[in-house]
Formats: sequence, C-alpha cells, structure tokens
Amino acid sequence: MKRKAVLIVCDGLGDLQINGKTPLQMAKKPNLDRMVSHGSSGLMYSIGPGIIPGSDTSHLAILGYDPKQYYSGRGTFEALGVGIKLEKNDIAFRCNFGTVDRKFRILDRRAGRIKDEGKILEKEIDRMKIEDVTIIFKASVEHRAALVLRGPGLSRNISDVDPHEVDKLNEAKPLDGSSEARKTARIINLFTKKSYEILSKHWINKKREAEGKMPANIILTRGPGIYEPVISIKEKFGFSSACIAGGALYKGIAKYLGMEILEVKGATGRYDSDLVAKGTAAVQALKKHEFVFIHVKGTDNAGHDGNLKEKVRMIEKVDKMIGVLIRKSNSIIALTSDHSTPVSLKAHSGHAVPIVLYGDVVRRDGIKSFDEISCAKGSLGILRGLDVMPILTSLMGYSKMYGS
Amino acid sequence: MKRKAVLIVCDGLGDLQINGKTPLQMAKKPNLDRMVSHGSSGLMYSIGPGIIPGSDTSHLAILGYDPKQYYSGRGTFEALGVGIKLEKNDIAFRCNFGTVDRKFRILDRRAGRIKDEGKILEKEIDRMKIEDVTIIFKASVEHRAALVLRGPGLSRNISDVDPHEVDKLNEAKPLDGSSEARKTARIINLFTKKSYEILSKHWINKKREAEGKMPANIILTRGPGIYEPVISIKEKFGFSSACIAGGALYKGIAKYLGMEILEVKGATGRYDSDLVAKGTAAVQALKKHEFVFIHVKGTDNAGHDGNLKEKVRMIEKVDKMIGVLIRKSNSIIALTSDHSTPVSLKAHSGHAVPIVLYGDVVRRDGIKSFDEISCAKGSLGILRGLDVMPILTSLMGYSKMYGS
Repeated sequence: MKRKAVLIVCDGLGDLQINGKTPLQMAKKPNLDRMVSHGSSGLMYSIGPGIIPGSDTSHLAILGYDPKQYYSGRGTFEALGVGIKLEKNDIAFRCNFGTVDRKFRILDRRAGRIKDEGKILEKEIDRMKIEDVTIIFKASVEHRAALVLRGPGLSRNISDVDPHEVDKLNEAKPLDGSSEARKTARIINLFTKKSYEILSKHWINKKREAEGKMPANIILTRGPGIYEPVISIKEKFGFSSACIAGGALYKGIAKYLGMEILEVKGATGRYDSDLVAKGTAAVQALKKHEFVFIHVKGTDNAGHDGNLKEKVRMIEKVDKMIGVLIRKSNSIIALTSDHSTPVSLKAHSGHAVPIVLYGDVVRRDGIKSFDEISCAKGSLGILRGLDVMPILTSLMGYSKMYGS
Repeated sequence: MKRKAVLIVCDGLGDLQINGKTPLQMAKKPNLDRMVSHGSSGLMYSIGPGIIPGSDTSHLAILGYDPKQYYSGRGTFEALGVGIKLEKNDIAFRCNFGTVDRKFRILDRRAGRIKDEGKILEKEIDRMKIEDVTIIFKASVEHRAALVLRGPGLSRNISDVDPHEVDKLNEAKPLDGSSEARKTARIINLFTKKSYEILSKHWINKKREAEGKMPANIILTRGPGIYEPVISIKEKFGFSSACIAGGALYKGIAKYLGMEILEVKGATGRYDSDLVAKGTAAVQALKKHEFVFIHVKGTDNAGHDGNLKEKVRMIEKVDKMIGVLIRKSNSIIALTSDHSTPVSLKAHSGHAVPIVLYGDVVRRDGIKSFDEISCAKGSLGILRGLDVMPILTSLMGYSKMYGS
C-alpha cells in the first residue's frame, strides 16, 4: 500500500540552551509533542558530525541528493528560484543591488533595501550582450536578484565581486588557470562596470538620491554556480512532489529537483509568514501530489538575528501549522531542520538537529518532547541528511527491495 | 582466550505496535529478557536506514559479507541450498513447478503445492542438454526447485519466466545487448517449452489430473544468479562454522560461505519447526565448531501471513530455544533479525530490528526487555548488518588488532 508524506524543514531550528533551555524547550508546542509521542524521533546531521551545512547543500542532502555529486554552486538555485529557465552550462550568480560611490567604494551592500524598484531596473540589464555572452537578469525580493551568463567557454570558478561587507568592490578573479575562468571573470568585470553606467543614470536612482536614499547603482555578484539538469525526484523515487516555500533558494532547489513550486499567499520566508496557510496549502497539494516539502525560513532568521523571542514565537507558529497537518493531511509527517542557527551564535553551527516521524507505519518510541535533548534518546538514533528520503520512501511504499 | 559463539537470526522479527505493543512486547520471553538484562542491546539496519532488505542480501551482510561485493542473484543460494554443487560461472535459478494450460496460461504458480512428486519428476529433467549447455535440476520442498545452466558464454542478466502472479507465462528476455544474455534467454525459453513437453506426459501428472489435481507440468524460473567461489568464513575470520536452518535459501547462503550445513530433524523452516531441537543441535555442534548460525524462518512467515498470534507464538518458541542455549552452550549468544516483516504490512519493511549480545565478555547496559522500543535505548546504538561479525569475532578473540 502506498502512502503520502509531508516533509517540513524548519531552517536553522537547532539551538543551544539559554538559561538551561533551548528555544524548542521554551516554546509551547502541543502538536509537535504529539507527533513525537506518537512517532519516532532522533537527531540528524544534514551532512555529518561537525560539518556546518549551508542551506543549499543541507537541503540537497535531506531531499536525497548527495551534495558531493549534485552541488555545483548556489547561484544555480537562486536563478531557478526567481524563475529563470536555465540551460546546461549556464553560469548563474546570486546578486545584490548595491550602492557605490564614483570610486567604486561600497556605501551599502543592499542599496538601502530597495522595495520594488528592482523590478523596473532589471529591464535595463536583462538580455544585455557582452562579447558572445548573453546576460539574463531578474530581480527578486528587496535588493536581491539573480544573474545568468549564457554563452560558450564559461566557468563557475571565479571569485565574488561582492566583498560581503562595506569595503571596496572586488574584481572578479579566475580561480584556476583555464581560459574559461579568465573569460568569465572578464565578462563579469565588464558587466559590473556596465551595470554602474546604466543604473547610476536611471531616473529611479535620481529620484532616490533626491529623496536622500541610497541609489541601487550597481550589481554585486557572488556564489557562481553551473547548471546541469539532474534526475528528478519523480524519476529517482517514483512519486510526484510539490514545494511550498517563501525563499527563492528553496524554490530553486525544489525546481532543480523537478518539484512543482506552489505559490501560497502570505508565505513570505519572513517572521510574518502565514504558516497555517502553508499547512492548508500542503493538505490541498496532497490531492495531486504524493510528497509535499514545506520550508520555514523564520526560525533561521531569528537565529541570525540573535532574537530568542522571535525564535520561540516562530516555533509556536510552526506548531499551529503541524496542527493543521495532523488533523487534515492523513499522511506521514516528518519534521526536521537543515542545521542549527543558535541565537547565541547568530550563525549556522555544526550541532545536530532533532527529527521526528509520525504516521500509522511509524513506531512509537516513547519520547515525549520535540527538542534537541529529548530526541537524542529516540529510536532513530543519529541520522544523516541522506538517510531521510530512503526512510520516507520506504514508509511511503515506494522503495524497491534490495535483493529478494 | 578464545570463545565460541551462536548467532541466531529470527527472520522478519521486527514489527510495529498493534494496540500499543509490538509482538515482541506481547510475547512471554523470559530467556530473551534475561539475555538483554545480562547483555548489551541495540537496533540494527541490516543494510542501512530506509533500505528494505531482501533475505539474501541481509544475511550476507549480517554474516560479514558486503552484498555490494558478494551478491550476484538469489538463484545461486537456492541451488546450493538444495544440494547442487556449483562451478564457477554456473547460472542458477530459483524455480517453481507450476501448472499451465495448452496455451501456456498459468493456472497455478505452485502446481497445487505438490508434495513429494517433485523428487520423481526431477529425474526427467536433470542432466538434460540444450545446445552446448547442461541442465542441472533438483526439486526441493513442495513445489520448489532449483535449476542450473552450465556451459560456455552464459549470463545472469535475463528476465524471469515466472510472472509472479497468475497470468500468462513470460518469455525470458535478455536484459542487456550481450550475446551471453541473448543465448541464456534462448536456452531458458527452449527449456521452459521442453519442461512442458516432458512433464505434461508424465504418469504422475496423468494421475494427478485423473484425481482432479493440478498437474506439475512446467518449470517456472526466476531470480538468476551467477556463481563465483568466495573467501570462506574460516579463511576470513579464522574459525570453523556450522549452519542450522530449515529453508533452502539460508542453507545455500551458509554453504556459499563455507559453513557446514547440519540437518536437524524437525527443523522445517515453518511454524511447526522444532526450535528446541535446533538449540540442542547447536549445543552439540559447538563441540566441533567455534561458530554456529541458527536461522528461524517462522517469525517471517507469520509477518507475511499477517498472523499476529503465530508471530507471538514463534517468539515464545524462540525463547525456549534460547533457554537451552543459555543453560548449555557456554558461549557468546547473539540474537537479531534480518529485517522487519510487520504483520500489519505483510511484507518486508525498512524498520530497524533489535539486536542483543550475551556472554561473559559483554557489558550489561541495563536494558530489561528484548523488543524494538527498549533496545533502541541500548548501548550498542544503531548498528549495520556488516558490524555484527566484527563485533562477534572480537568478543570471540579472533580479531587482529588494527595497528599496534
């Protein structure tokens, strides 16, 4: 018999104790605790003990794709996530609109966190041609954007223009001796200059300057990736799948793996995200799909912001979403995280995260609370990210027997 | 000091809770609980988390042979198990006597579960020649049999004739473009037809038809394997070993690994198997051998049959056998399972199984009950099948130090 499943990844959920309790231990979470009490739990390292996972590599692993084989740079996912259709060997970058002065010193890496102006500015840059390379450019939320270089003889092996802090602009540099890396660095440096020439003259930026705001007068590239099509979740595991996420990265990863991307009103990838709406959308999606992946970003934001109160509040919002799924999804439910983002560290860390499985084919192992300490005693032991999908697909009835 | 050991594998033992308890939690099992109370316990995935193991691959792993290296099809073990002496590159099949009509439509995949007639019918087929290939054929219990093709230029890469359900007979098809696969498929298709021609005319089948029974008028092949001799347990671990099992598959795996196969009266591989006789035979075998592997099949049968009562009863029979071993074997005793076969699923599943080690060199970790939930808290943690023999051989005093 086949079963359906929902996998929820609460980004950066794992944490450390603050005055004796982790945020998960502080939060009121009757539904998460119900999942644990009726299910199996454990801890998980999405990559391995002591490895600090990025959000991209960890999600690949949790979704069943070994990042050693399938990861080739974050830009790819960002470009897919903002809706760019990629072709094989496209070089994709994650970008910011930024603000520089005439000497290319960075005044603001986020151009004063522009709102919707990126959607107007992108038209001036998109489909630009430099040498034999076509530039594809698409603005995303606020100052964020994605850039793609399409043309012959390119490489992802170049350094970032974005210096990642307020500093002088970096020049893109080839990271190996290949002519491809040299060409790509040259194109990016030409593009960076051109972006300044075009954007600094644009009326939107003139207006922003007149209003005393930072102009969005340059594109800062980073995280190059090279795109290659991969085997889809449908081909790999045999079932149809959908993704519900606010952030472009997670939509991009899901699209990379062939999942349908569902747009849910109020799913923002921020503290204000409507998680009950995401839960309800997942219940709906299960009518069409066998597997739904829900991503929650706010828990990670709270970790990066060092905001304990928001982290606890986000967990309590997640708990309400779980209530909807328990009552209405009639499916296997799995919940975990991609990595810890302890509020005391304000950064990703290598600490294990808790994981729980819930459903009629899951053993009850007697653990009562969903948190980092209780789940360490659970019957799943200590898993790796790559274990999650084999476990789920065997519970769902989609695994082939190994041997006979 | 060297120690002897008994390893008991209760097939398909792992299960899920039914009204809050697994069959292991329901059964009266004072001896198993004594083993746990005086020993170390844990959980085990014979292959890995979420992998649904076949009986063949899982036993190879538990007996210390990585199936990725040593598994090349089930037929090999079936042929060895019924007593055929294999030579390198022999292609071996698991077979059923079946019943077909004149249009080769299958009326019964098991020929009305014939009793001993197979032993007479086998003589008509054994040592047949097709082209330059010799056919070796041996009947086993009821409708079961094994077939071996011996000759130049053969391959295991062909499809099954047995359609695995009541349907039209399949034609064996090559699964790759090699001339070896094409030749093997051709030989098998010729053999299938010949088996019908010979068997349908046989007096035993005339008699069965006259009695209104299904005639055993065709041989249905499946699960091809190619035989290659492997390093024996004696060479690999340094000690002499014996196997006590009812089912042909398990005897075949043991023979493949160079164990002595002990025939025990009353060991049937069914619910009625005399497990106390098997335990007593193991105690006896330990006078000659250092290591005895006991296989119990009934627990798996009960899982496949969805028969909770029989599963609990089989566990209680196992417990009595353990009583004999605890009292009389004076050896290390290990008990585990190859995979879960939950009675609610009636099929192998990917759920972990419990494992227990007992003996004077084993730590007492304070677990009190041998079941899936209690052993999850045991000191062995979560093992893989391939961990079992290294742990046992080090307890037995046969391991070499790694380094110095």
